[in-house]
Amino acid sequence: MVKRISHLGIVPKDVEKAVKFFHGVLNLEKEGSEIVDEQKVAVQFIRTENSRLEILEATSSESPIAKFLETKGSGVQHIALEVDNLDEWIQHLKKNNIRLIDEAPRYGAHNTRIIFIHPHSTGGVLVELVEEQNK
Amino acid sequence: MVKRISHLGIVPKDVEKAVKFFHGVLNLEKEGSEIVDEQKVAVQFIRTENSRLEILEATSSESPIAKFLETKGSGVQHIALEVDNLDEWIQHLKKNNIRLIDEAPRYGAHNTRIIFIHPHSTGGVLVELVEEQNK
Repeated sequence: MVKRISHLGIVPKDVEKAVKFFHGVLNLEKEGSEIVDEQKVAVQFIRTENSRLEILEATSSESPIAKFLETKGSGVQHIALEVDNLDEWIQHLKKNNIRLIDEAPRYGAHNTRIIFIHPHSTGGVLVELVEEQNK
Repeated sequence: MVKRISHLGIVPKDVEKAVKFFHGVLNLEKEGSEIVDEQKVAVQFIRTENSRLEILEATSSESPIAKFLETKGSGVQHIALEVDNLDEWIQHLKKNNIRLIDEAPRYGAHNTRIIFIHPHSTGGVLVELVEEQNK
């Protein structure tokens, strides 16, 4: 079952201004930060009542985040949806000829298991499926 | 208080494929559709457990949605956050020199009162504040 919007991956052109806006002006709570080496990205977490914003900043020019900024400009890079059983979902997606970016699940921030679905199969939006661990 | 992600405005390059993906493959529930004349957009609503995806399609080449597709390509056009008192928030934003796209609130889908905040003031993301009516 696909449950909720787990988080949004936001790529601002000005990270400091974005954090100042969402935290400083809108008073949304900060929830720390994390470096995800595998994706060459620094993440700052901002909590909403029902979900989370992840403010993404490239730590290398080879990061997918740097490429997104170059080609699309600032904005929401991906939508992450929480699922109950990622492995079953991967089988389901493959059966439906949905193109996955990853061959197998990898680890995301907060020790989650994740997979990215190619925008080609979603009408043009990068979608991540997330399985929370430690439930 | 800023509460939850009310919805995401998604602009696919292929609307039919997007609906087929989110509803047909991910099994998220459809919640009807609406034409918002003021923004020259047709909206299809897709429900998640905690929020909503709004699949947006321009009904005119002058729609902001058509312009988004042209300049940014397909993706998430805006993030809508629910607030408790929109008028108070507008005052708060003005005091903080946040640039608003609208001078005064207007009506969005589902009979909500909304205002858009200019990406210049958010680090580069289009943000909508939404006040639900009929509470």
